[in-house]
Amino acid sequence: MDKRDDSIEGDLQDGNTDGYVSPLGEVHTRTARLSGFQTRSGYRLKEIEINYLTLGKLSPEKDNAILICHALSGNAHVAGAHHETGRPGWWDLYVGPGKTIDTNKFFVICSNVIGGCNGSTGPTSINPDTGKAYGMEFPPITIEDMVRGQVELIDHLGIQKLFSVIGGSMGGMQALIWATHYPGRVQTCIPLATCMAHSAMQIAFNEVGRQAILNDPKWQEGQYNRESRPEHGLAVARMVAHVTYLSEFSMQDKFGRRQQRPPSREDLFPMYFSVESYLHYQGESFVKRFDPNSYLYITKALDMFDLLGGNNPEEIFSSVEARFLVVSFESDWLYPPSQSRELVRALKRSRVTVTYLNLETPNGHDSFLIHNVELFGVLGNFLNVEYRNMRDQGALATNDSGAV
Amino acid sequence: MDKRDDSIEGDLQDGNTDGYVSPLGEVHTRTARLSGFQTRSGYRLKEIEINYLTLGKLSPEKDNAILICHALSGNAHVAGAHHETGRPGWWDLYVGPGKTIDTNKFFVICSNVIGGCNGSTGPTSINPDTGKAYGMEFPPITIEDMVRGQVELIDHLGIQKLFSVIGGSMGGMQALIWATHYPGRVQTCIPLATCMAHSAMQIAFNEVGRQAILNDPKWQEGQYNRESRPEHGLAVARMVAHVTYLSEFSMQDKFGRRQQRPPSREDLFPMYFSVESYLHYQGESFVKRFDPNSYLYITKALDMFDLLGGNNPEEIFSSVEARFLVVSFESDWLYPPSQSRELVRALKRSRVTVTYLNLETPNGHDSFLIHNVELFGVLGNFLNVEYRNMRDQGALATNDSGAV
Repeated sequence: MDKRDDSIEGDLQDGNTDGYVSPLGEVHTRTARLSGFQTRSGYRLKEIEINYLTLGKLSPEKDNAILICHALSGNAHVAGAHHETGRPGWWDLYVGPGKTIDTNKFFVICSNVIGGCNGSTGPTSINPDTGKAYGMEFPPITIEDMVRGQVELIDHLGIQKLFSVIGGSMGGMQALIWATHYPGRVQTCIPLATCMAHSAMQIAFNEVGRQAILNDPKWQEGQYNRESRPEHGLAVARMVAHVTYLSEFSMQDKFGRRQQRPPSREDLFPMYFSVESYLHYQGESFVKRFDPNSYLYITKALDMFDLLGGNNPEEIFSSVEARFLVVSFESDWLYPPSQSRELVRALKRSRVTVTYLNLETPNGHDSFLIHNVELFGVLGNFLNVEYRNMRDQGALATNDSGAV
Repeated sequence: MDKRDDSIEGDLQDGNTDGYVSPLGEVHTRTARLSGFQTRSGYRLKEIEINYLTLGKLSPEKDNAILICHALSGNAHVAGAHHETGRPGWWDLYVGPGKTIDTNKFFVICSNVIGGCNGSTGPTSINPDTGKAYGMEFPPITIEDMVRGQVELIDHLGIQKLFSVIGGSMGGMQALIWATHYPGRVQTCIPLATCMAHSAMQIAFNEVGRQAILNDPKWQEGQYNRESRPEHGLAVARMVAHVTYLSEFSMQDKFGRRQQRPPSREDLFPMYFSVESYLHYQGESFVKRFDPNSYLYITKALDMFDLLGGNNPEEIFSSVEARFLVVSFESDWLYPPSQSRELVRALKRSRVTVTYLNLETPNGHDSFLIHNVELFGVLGNFLNVEYRNMRDQGALATNDSGAV
């Protein structure tokens, strides 16, 4: 198995971290129990749990909170050494003391999305009405629902206004919902490698993954038990997704046509390529940490997301108060720069202050997750300048209610 | 179901042909039985069958034969109305009386590849040693094997030299093997949208498809019977392949975010996109006409193909006598123009006469299969000029042996 995983979404989770140790030390996520959550589809959940992690300290003025929103396969464990496995969080390269998102300066929050399978309420949670896991009884969830869960968490933490909401891919969609639906609660908004709505191709790749799960006989209309999950289907879904996260160049550079010794099953054929072994490893490690039904729900939320929903950009963005930094990556063909440019044009037309950067990294969609000196610099600089300016201008009203 | 299929590989086979009727009228394929075929891997098949179609008439000089090589999912039925279904062949837009490849002028041959499932010997054929279908007992096959089957067919038809070998995608690989392995038997060579060896990304997408099949419990290590085939796996394999045959633009243009009424299974979720319905239709219609094991064998042959095999281009191309026309398509991201340019550079360095065209069509890899006025023009002109020049120069030795 080729475990090299240094340029893949889920990077520091699934892969060989090559002895990297998080400077944050051991971290523990917590769980907030929030009562009475109504989804956008009108379904009422009596209680939801939101699993979250905080890093750094909230300032007395409560003006230094940064919410980091994770992508499809992420979770609350954004940085720090996991208390059981010791593994660093998925954005450990970006978040920590003295890093781009400096935990000596900022209070960082990251929570697992509703519909997920890493501690927040989702299809694997117990339905209080039946005493069994929801499975497909779980209501459809949307990016708006994910964000409303975060809003309730932020309320729970006693924070009125976030200094920044940052996210890549699905995380960027959440950041966009924050800035447009809760304009008074976001000072800056940083969507990376994302879009205002999925294109037909983005929907198509997600649908291939969903079909792989739905066609696995162990899926059982979503009512599988833990001992017999549709893991083969989920692995195939992850494999195709993985290919879309990379670039032709980065795959060729990393694997080319290199071959491995064939394992038993593949010796039907005389050649077994390293890239095949790598994909198998990615599929197999993903099924250990992700739930097939969650994958169905979250990919559908991605496909349903439509920020403009047929409206003029001005109608959607006119109330926005946040200042934007938008970043795309030239080699990202899954969320191509054209989608970010469309967002930037819409923001500018709506007189939102926006800085846009298209970076020439070779690593495809994964570029926002990996070691990237340019992105470190741009992101760190934007946050520091905006924070200084905000404090100089006293832009944030102090807020003494609530406590962390 | 969205059956619109006007820009897809397998175009005139799987889809709604919208009342298009082949001007060639009804055609019948034939089967050649050839004894004693040894694969490149050293396995000896006592007898092979090659299913083939011929159109037009072989000239008395036997100098007007064009071999058309099909791609992954194609077959011998290149043009004309199928004698049972009435459906036009997969390249009916290109091949016929007065068309780009003019059957009034040329003698067109197209045969199903060895390893296939449309009349030529492959995994579904009966193994004479066991009396049962070969399944995974079938030997690994290569592009070279496919071409050697064609060579034996051409011998069988009494043709010494082909005026042209034409093919797109996998068909282009076969054309390259013809020109390099049988240099004296090819006057012109026309590889479209192809490459000299699969990149890591091309291997990766094929491997996702194979894993979908291998993970289907009905695959049964390849020993499934006709009534219980791994159709779900094959459908998923076809879906992901389909996405790679299109371009982001063409999918967006055709489907965008248009929605359909949800069928029973998908009403778990509130949105059901036309592109999803379309992919389901593509998967379902493909499984009716293709064998899962053949899909494994042929995709592996694609991945194993490596024309240079570590040699300098000059070593491989020095003996080439054919004159080349190489065509790529700007929006083809599966077989990107860079791969064709690499081929062209290698040919030029080896002093092979080559014309290269990169066409600005929007339809991705499928561009070589669909209505394409530019390609019609370039291809037709090349064939007509080269044929006239050849006849003027008397370049082909007349050959009186054999008969059709």
